[in-house]
Amino acid sequence: MDFAKFHGLVPAVVQDHQTGEVLMVAYLNREAFERTRETGRMHYYSRSRNKLWMKGETSGHVQEVQEILVDCDLDAAVFKIRQVGGAACHTGYRSCFHRRLEPSGELTITETAKVFDPAQVYSQ
Amino acid sequence: MDFAKFHGLVPAVVQDHQTGEVLMVAYLNREAFERTRETGRMHYYSRSRNKLWMKGETSGHVQEVQEILVDCDLDAAVFKIRQVGGAACHTGYRSCFHRRLEPSGELTITETAKVFDPAQVYSQ
Repeated sequence: MDFAKFHGLVPAVVQDHQTGEVLMVAYLNREAFERTRETGRMHYYSRSRNKLWMKGETSGHVQEVQEILVDCDLDAAVFKIRQVGGAACHTGYRSCFHRRLEPSGELTITETAKVFDPAQVYSQ
Repeated sequence: MDFAKFHGLVPAVVQDHQTGEVLMVAYLNREAFERTRETGRMHYYSRSRNKLWMKGETSGHVQEVQEILVDCDLDAAVFKIRQVGGAACHTGYRSCFHRRLEPSGELTITETAKVFDPAQVYSQ
């Protein structure tokens, strides 16, 4: 992968391996990419916390990699994953992309309910 | 959208509105986002050429926006689109993500054939 192009990072599209739903977008540096391939579980690089982290390390909601696709320029990747716990978003929704931008500019929620209560999951 | 977080840009996941296939990842600045919403056709910001461009302006293979989803942090978006011409990748493949990264590290092509011949499309 070409990590040089974007400050050492590559954006990852994380997609449910069965439904094709896009669950989140996050960034991997070289180390996160290697750890993800070695362990079969999604690891990311947090720009705000400046550290490597494994998705689910607090919540238990890990992401198991089923397939990795790379783009024509080798500067982005799609990870098809199985989401343990059923929800990828820290808000408790299945997908981080649970809001639609309407032509009016309004945001409407597209999911009917949260999968988990973040107050319970992240207080443990 | 929060354009401040990543050097004025927001990554866009471009997804076929019918199949859910991820076709490409590209970046929008504020102007590209506004032009996309106004026209209903995908506009991007090219970091290498330092300019706004409309997908399909050379090839005619424009992308018609069907739905826009935004993520929990408002720093990424999913655009569900109809791909005119059937292929999003400048190589002629349907998707930019037409290669699988195998556990061995090898890249294998996942699409059976190119949709168009880039030498023909881009020489016109």
